[in-house]
Amino acid sequence: MPFTPAVREQRFVLDTVARIADLAATDRFEAATPDLIDAVLEGAGQFAAGEWAPLNREGDTNGPKWTSEGVKMPAGYPQAYRDYVEGGWGTIGAPADFGGQGLPFVLASAVLETLGTANMGFALAPTLTVGAIEALLHHGTPEQQAAYLPHLATGEWTGTMNLTEPQAGSDVGALKSRAEPVGDGTFKISGTKIFISFGDHDMADNIVHLVLARTPGAPEGTRGISLFLVPKYRLDANGKPSAFNDVRVVSIEHKMGLHASPTCVLSFGDNGDCIGELIGPENGGMRAMFTMMNNARLNVGLQGVQVGEAATQKAVEFARERIQSARAGSPDKKPVAIIEHPDVRRMLMRMKAQTQAARALVYLASSMVDRVDTDDAAKDRLEILTPLAKAHATDLGNEVASLGIQVHGGMGFIEETGAAQFFRDARITPIYEGTNGIQAADLVGRKLGLSNGAAFNTLIADMRAEANDAALRTLINACEEVGRRLATADADDRLAASYPFLTMLSVAVCGWLMERQARDADANDDFCRMKRAVAAFYIEQIVPEALGLHAAASAPAASLYELSADLFAA
Amino acid sequence: MPFTPAVREQRFVLDTVARIADLAATDRFEAATPDLIDAVLEGAGQFAAGEWAPLNREGDTNGPKWTSEGVKMPAGYPQAYRDYVEGGWGTIGAPADFGGQGLPFVLASAVLETLGTANMGFALAPTLTVGAIEALLHHGTPEQQAAYLPHLATGEWTGTMNLTEPQAGSDVGALKSRAEPVGDGTFKISGTKIFISFGDHDMADNIVHLVLARTPGAPEGTRGISLFLVPKYRLDANGKPSAFNDVRVVSIEHKMGLHASPTCVLSFGDNGDCIGELIGPENGGMRAMFTMMNNARLNVGLQGVQVGEAATQKAVEFARERIQSARAGSPDKKPVAIIEHPDVRRMLMRMKAQTQAARALVYLASSMVDRVDTDDAAKDRLEILTPLAKAHATDLGNEVASLGIQVHGGMGFIEETGAAQFFRDARITPIYEGTNGIQAADLVGRKLGLSNGAAFNTLIADMRAEANDAALRTLINACEEVGRRLATADADDRLAASYPFLTMLSVAVCGWLMERQARDADANDDFCRMKRAVAAFYIEQIVPEALGLHAAASAPAASLYELSADLFAA
Repeated sequence: MPFTPAVREQRFVLDTVARIADLAATDRFEAATPDLIDAVLEGAGQFAAGEWAPLNREGDTNGPKWTSEGVKMPAGYPQAYRDYVEGGWGTIGAPADFGGQGLPFVLASAVLETLGTANMGFALAPTLTVGAIEALLHHGTPEQQAAYLPHLATGEWTGTMNLTEPQAGSDVGALKSRAEPVGDGTFKISGTKIFISFGDHDMADNIVHLVLARTPGAPEGTRGISLFLVPKYRLDANGKPSAFNDVRVVSIEHKMGLHASPTCVLSFGDNGDCIGELIGPENGGMRAMFTMMNNARLNVGLQGVQVGEAATQKAVEFARERIQSARAGSPDKKPVAIIEHPDVRRMLMRMKAQTQAARALVYLASSMVDRVDTDDAAKDRLEILTPLAKAHATDLGNEVASLGIQVHGGMGFIEETGAAQFFRDARITPIYEGTNGIQAADLVGRKLGLSNGAAFNTLIADMRAEANDAALRTLINACEEVGRRLATADADDRLAASYPFLTMLSVAVCGWLMERQARDADANDDFCRMKRAVAAFYIEQIVPEALGLHAAASAPAASLYELSADLFAA
Repeated sequence: MPFTPAVREQRFVLDTVARIADLAATDRFEAATPDLIDAVLEGAGQFAAGEWAPLNREGDTNGPKWTSEGVKMPAGYPQAYRDYVEGGWGTIGAPADFGGQGLPFVLASAVLETLGTANMGFALAPTLTVGAIEALLHHGTPEQQAAYLPHLATGEWTGTMNLTEPQAGSDVGALKSRAEPVGDGTFKISGTKIFISFGDHDMADNIVHLVLARTPGAPEGTRGISLFLVPKYRLDANGKPSAFNDVRVVSIEHKMGLHASPTCVLSFGDNGDCIGELIGPENGGMRAMFTMMNNARLNVGLQGVQVGEAATQKAVEFARERIQSARAGSPDKKPVAIIEHPDVRRMLMRMKAQTQAARALVYLASSMVDRVDTDDAAKDRLEILTPLAKAHATDLGNEVASLGIQVHGGMGFIEETGAAQFFRDARITPIYEGTNGIQAADLVGRKLGLSNGAAFNTLIADMRAEANDAALRTLINACEEVGRRLATADADDRLAASYPFLTMLSVAVCGWLMERQARDADANDDFCRMKRAVAAFYIEQIVPEALGLHAAASAPAASLYELSADLFAA
């Protein structure tokens, strides 16, 4: 078995953290009965472990290839993708009006988690499709929705996000791709985009590119950006993909990891024949992009959970099988499985705790997506949790993957073992969909002041109302103190402290949720014993660590500017 | 320029931390005049930057190849290695009686640091040769020394360490390689060793394998292990390499990083014709191995410095050139170099601070090697600092390499950029020469109690006598409290707390040394301004973080054993 789907854990977190029963009590999600949830989680687990996990190493060692006809995926991928479409695994959270099942986003996230635990690079294809669906659902015309959503919902067509250009990375406003009105309401698109995940492949009948570009005379910066729908193949009168739309894949990147995902350089309109449709209003691209991006950020946070789960399972399996050295003070000096050695156990416990913390954080944030339409407080909660979920969960995924290598010792550095792949794959997650530094800037720049500070204050209040452990309560107090100060601090001071503050607040949220899980895991069975022990470790060892960040979160920017840029090279 | 040798910084740390002037005041090291030190550092820098650094990427992308005639190094490596030998860069610290220059070990370490900053995988060849020299110098017969040391001192021949076998990794005592006496004082060696760095290559005239094996009837475990000298080619009557000694390279590993270094599986005596000589007494192999290993551990710690320096320089260069986004609140909204953004600056400052901290820690430990022959206190100090230098400096190298990727954003994940290589290369350093967990076990198991606790107590006392900052003093107190408790704690509790304790104590030592450097950097020049700012950042932000580990360093093992090994998989 390449991995064991974490079905029981997922279900528990859906119940305890996402409170999915409350969602199922609403008309919108009444289909989400406990039996259906179990069936979805188990079915996804069987599918992912059976069909996607076995392709993981092939995707890493013999990844997609660029050809003059486009990108060819590795052997097995096109079929496994078709099976995913046919199994309906893409439709879980897609809108019921367009062929989806309309189940909670957080349940769809759990399915996506399982797919990504099996094969993280592969699962990026559906991840991006989710973003395209969101953008069309919120900003597309009825005609656009009718033409595209049913095919995106099933996954027959996949989606991409085209933001980055060579000179425009984190600074999206610097992009230069152009959109010239044709006169019939459509636009001719031209420009080059880089770092486009699944920008081309041979698994689906069409690829729906969502492209940020500028119309003639648009204002500079982010205020002059519009979002365009640019299919790889234009739709004919029957809505079928037909004429090639002049979108070329120029090259694919040679990356450190995530090899199963082709990262493309796309050239739009080389022959002046690339047609796009506006999504939302002209110059309204940033707003539409954020719709697409925000849920994508949650799903990148989810990749931290994916890689954490995969790395942990592999390390636990290895540590239970690898016999090496007797326990210290052992009378018979008999070598034992290394899981019995205290420091190996500490690493494994940490891996489990950080993975579970990341899952709780991401599920909580994702469950707010399901509540925002009817609940303004949920909207605030989603906004403030999004940078935490994206940044902290991906940081944890990296930490866990690194510990996974360490547990394997020398074997961890050998590629055939597989632990190294997780470590390489994970490293992109703190970077894409807005670097973790951008997330921290978002937290202190926009989210702390949201709803006059209510988004932050109610989060603190909710944690405080429930938290019990003394160190956790101290951490919550420290977060409140730092957050209040940063909310009115000078911009540089705010940004200088942003990352340590984001980590402190994330650990506080995770501590709160881990403590709640330990309380709710009150049965006398193996799973509940495991949950209580792991949560206790988190509270006792990881929460106090975050208190050590208080000094960094309180330091003014001046200390960073003591050195001129030149002196950094001294 | 691929990198700028950190000559000024090295010299400063040699003066301030290693106190090399005190060494130069002794007869043994009187040659180490300030002018000579500068000449060595600058010459090594020019050589490394000019000849080794340009080969770094070639070694990564097109590494050594296994052939039936042995391992072929990448293009350029054999010549660059010959130039290293001819330049005398291997002879710096080698014994004067055997063709070396007899300069301080810590100065030789600075040279090795520069070579490894240029090309870490390549520099592993001389690193291992140092270990072989140490073993022969302390445990070889005069004949063995005369026959081998002059060639190892120049680097004409390279050395290897052969400990690991498939079933014997951290548990060295489980090894099975055999040594059968021939009757003439030599032994026939047989067995398979894995993970042998530079176990074969085509750069030197001979390779001197130091091999742990068992003689017939030897006791089980570590008490029955002997060390053997096994050349690749036996020496003829004139001491020249001649007959092949039946040591075959069976394969080389496919590793995540450090590709320039061939990691070999070696098979000894397949044709019953592999002859070895005992080094030191029969069954005295562990002691001889530790001689070789201890300095090797310092030099692996030094690899943390190497990769930290290389990653920092690359990230600083990128951040000064990459223009992206205006500063927050900038009136003209003009995009600036990303080094001007607070969170990027925080990352770069952290990279500089952690690299300098690692260098100070490793140089301090290495400078004790130069004092142990005449100073018992230095011997204790070396013993207690060795696990810190090995484990913490390699942890820091990994952290810095990861930050280096983050500074590069999406480009950091693309292999051509080069930041990813540092990240991949660094990951082995917390594993080999005794995993960092083994270092932590050594610290709490052997070193805390050394000389009835004096090794630990005097370190605490020396730090306390000099440390000024309040948080640093608190950290020193916390280390003392935890260390005293662990010294008499139950073995499991000691081991459970060992890693967080090792980190706390390492940060205390680094904080002490960074504070001292800030005090000594009292000139009004760029370098001293840089040192003061970086040290201030370390004291203000990194020292308090380590206090957050107090809870973990105080937690009993019981919390880790709440879960059975089976429940870890629950």
